[in-house]
Amino acid sequence: MRKQLAAETVGTFWLVFGGCGSAILAAAFPDLGIGFTGVALAFGLTVVTMAYAVGGISGGHFNPAVSVGLTVAGRFPAARLLPYIAAQLVGAILAAAALYLVASGKAGFAPGGFAANGYGEHSPGGYSLTSALVIEIILTAIFLFVILGTTHGRAPVGFAPLAIGLTLTLIHLISIPVTNTSVNPARSTSQALFADGWALGQLWLFWLAPLLGAVLGALVWKAVGETD
Amino acid sequence: MRKQLAAETVGTFWLVFGGCGSAILAAAFPDLGIGFTGVALAFGLTVVTMAYAVGGISGGHFNPAVSVGLTVAGRFPAARLLPYIAAQLVGAILAAAALYLVASGKAGFAPGGFAANGYGEHSPGGYSLTSALVIEIILTAIFLFVILGTTHGRAPVGFAPLAIGLTLTLIHLISIPVTNTSVNPARSTSQALFADGWALGQLWLFWLAPLLGAVLGALVWKAVGETD
Amino acid sequence: MRKQLAAETVGTFWLVFGGCGSAILAAAFPDLGIGFTGVALAFGLTVVTMAYAVGGISGGHFNPAVSVGLTVAGRFPAARLLPYIAAQLVGAILAAAALYLVASGKAGFAPGGFAANGYGEHSPGGYSLTSALVIEIILTAIFLFVILGTTHGRAPVGFAPLAIGLTLTLIHLISIPVTNTSVNPARSTSQALFADGWALGQLWLFWLAPLLGAVLGALVWKAVGETD
Amino acid sequence: MRKQLAAETVGTFWLVFGGCGSAILAAAFPDLGIGFTGVALAFGLTVVTMAYAVGGISGGHFNPAVSVGLTVAGRFPAARLLPYIAAQLVGAILAAAALYLVASGKAGFAPGGFAANGYGEHSPGGYSLTSALVIEIILTAIFLFVILGTTHGRAPVGFAPLAIGLTLTLIHLISIPVTNTSVNPARSTSQALFADGWALGQLWLFWLAPLLGAVLGALVWKAVGETD
Repeated sequence: MRKQLAAETVGTFWLVFGGCGSAILAAAFPDLGIGFTGVALAFGLTVVTMAYAVGGISGGHFNPAVSVGLTVAGRFPAARLLPYIAAQLVGAILAAAALYLVASGKAGFAPGGFAANGYGEHSPGGYSLTSALVIEIILTAIFLFVILGTTHGRAPVGFAPLAIGLTLTLIHLISIPVTNTSVNPARSTSQALFADGWALGQLWLFWLAPLLGAVLGALVWKAVGETD
Repeated sequence: MRKQLAAETVGTFWLVFGGCGSAILAAAFPDLGIGFTGVALAFGLTVVTMAYAVGGISGGHFNPAVSVGLTVAGRFPAARLLPYIAAQLVGAILAAAALYLVASGKAGFAPGGFAANGYGEHSPGGYSLTSALVIEIILTAIFLFVILGTTHGRAPVGFAPLAIGLTLTLIHLISIPVTNTSVNPARSTSQALFADGWALGQLWLFWLAPLLGAVLGALVWKAVGETD
Repeated sequence: MRKQLAAETVGTFWLVFGGCGSAILAAAFPDLGIGFTGVALAFGLTVVTMAYAVGGISGGHFNPAVSVGLTVAGRFPAARLLPYIAAQLVGAILAAAALYLVASGKAGFAPGGFAANGYGEHSPGGYSLTSALVIEIILTAIFLFVILGTTHGRAPVGFAPLAIGLTLTLIHLISIPVTNTSVNPARSTSQALFADGWALGQLWLFWLAPLLGAVLGALVWKAVGETD
Repeated sequence: MRKQLAAETVGTFWLVFGGCGSAILAAAFPDLGIGFTGVALAFGLTVVTMAYAVGGISGGHFNPAVSVGLTVAGRFPAARLLPYIAAQLVGAILAAAALYLVASGKAGFAPGGFAANGYGEHSPGGYSLTSALVIEIILTAIFLFVILGTTHGRAPVGFAPLAIGLTLTLIHLISIPVTNTSVNPARSTSQALFADGWALGQLWLFWLAPLLGAVLGALVWKAVGETD
């Protein structure tokens, strides 16, 4: 299992370094910045590219909510859950540290919110705690639903990494204004460690909602997609 | 047929929650918003992702005009038409309600036009009823033509969901300024129910034009694409 | 050959209606417009989608320069060249007429340059005739090179429509500021017929350069890509 | 090996002409310009399209760092390294010259930084030499890791060119503000030759960091991805 865990660490490193990195370094660059569309594309492409590269090794989860959802759906052994989540957290935190090193090489840098997730006054668009809970649950549920559907034997072979990564792009196109988009507790944790203090105080929601959503998505898939 | 209808409900939920959600929540965010390009990408990706996930279950229509066009082309049994359309409407309306819940969690929220479709004074760019009719008919016709062509035995295996979803992206890149882009009566209906009153008054066009277009597209495909 | 010509007409209609339509209707919409990136994406997706839909019928040229280049490379019979080009012109001109009808449904509409191609004072960025010639030749040459390479027996099966369409997106990302991007004489002709008078006067370049480029690309491919 | 070298020259020509061309000609066009998102897409699509076109001939490196990394990973014979790098440099420099010719056809043109890479006061966002070193090493390492993973026998067949090219898009979405993004010494050299004098003085970093990163990526892949 050593290589599987290493693959999860590298993949989650890439998800955070690429997704949060594009948000911190490039989103708001004057005039030419990539905006939310570019950040959404970046998050999705981290998964497209790494799922093609290491999907055959570890399954390409890169996200504790994905590992939990796959376990609920009976596709992943519960015994591997904690090691996988630990490997994902290691990769995410290493990426946040590397990103901090790069970003701080600019005069006048202050971490501020880094790319942390938030609700209420820390929601990018000022959305409430309820809005944050609802949208994170719904989006993680559909994320798991698509993952389970596209990796099912009935789906076209080879396209799952593309469809799954593009789902993450779509999720960000919808919800960056609401929560800065989590659906991934490892990503949220890594940023909260380097951001201003409020981020750790709101981190509970970005474990709770994605995990609830993942369980919900797995159950809906089992009802809709599994033949009896 | 229960699982097929459930798949259509989930898929149409995603089309409306993702496509209309990105429009309502993220398109006009100050400075960093995703604009029409991001919304076009979002609508297309709802279909790319769900067609890969549940295409093997229900065919992945998510749109009454698609179901009607496939029936005219002889690819879908007429007896299933009404249940499919009902399932699509249920998914679309549930998504609009969820979206309303999320969007209203921001201080000062008012639904306004929500993401409803319109013409004349309710066209985003001020285009006439005639422009709206013409473009919705043409775009739905080509949408069906591409669907029938890419799912034909002659086309490369596995790429249909990608090509069909990207057609919906392209359709939005062209026509958001004219009608806010429908080509899908379920999507239009779901938004009109939550928008200001004018939207229900203009809803007839977004049933009539997509359905006419779908029939036209199916007939053109049969003339061009079917071998005798 | 009737069905092949019909497929070329439908495909070229889509290329012009989608590509030029997005430019005319959506590129410069205030605040939310799709800009050159959206137009580049639209042109490319017309080819991605139609090449998957009718590539198996007509080969999916949609462009006189492509048909000429394929003939020079020995992949397309010279006897079919003129009928194909005629079918492409019919589709392109029908699309321009439909686009004119839609666009004129907005108060204060004037065609202006429509989406015509130009150089010198009619280049979007003010580039010279020489710049226009050089870039149209180079880009059409590489377009043909990619078409010939990705449809060769050595390339992965099924990906050619995607790679070819995305090449057209890339071509537009580079060159809209120089010539408004042609690489396709049918597209250029269709717009010049509806634009202000200067466009017909500059149309010669957008036949000459793409055709020269296509021949060049075919010859380079034969030197590099064909095994003896 | 003549055809392989020709393919590398054409492919690297396209990478520089398309990627740097979009940056120079289209990124900052008033109001409608493609910005960093469009440039990132352009760089990635040069690789997607050419890797599908000539990957079967030369392997589709188009980058000295890729050739070096593949050699370290045991996938490419060291004896071919220098000819490949020479062919890549020829293609890159020819593209820069062609681009200079096109760009200079606009009144008031001055090369300035062209699309050269830089750090410190020549970093687009003012990032330090350390930030530049770190990010170029990390991004090139992951680039090689993805290349080695997606071309491994375990990965889905046919998707490697897509995944690899989209990795280059993602790399640019993250790092244009830091170094203008190199990860490719041939690309950097070609631009430094035509840019203002500082670019040649900073060129060492854009050989050193990508080559170090490529070696690192190859070693990480061997530890994670190769079965014993």
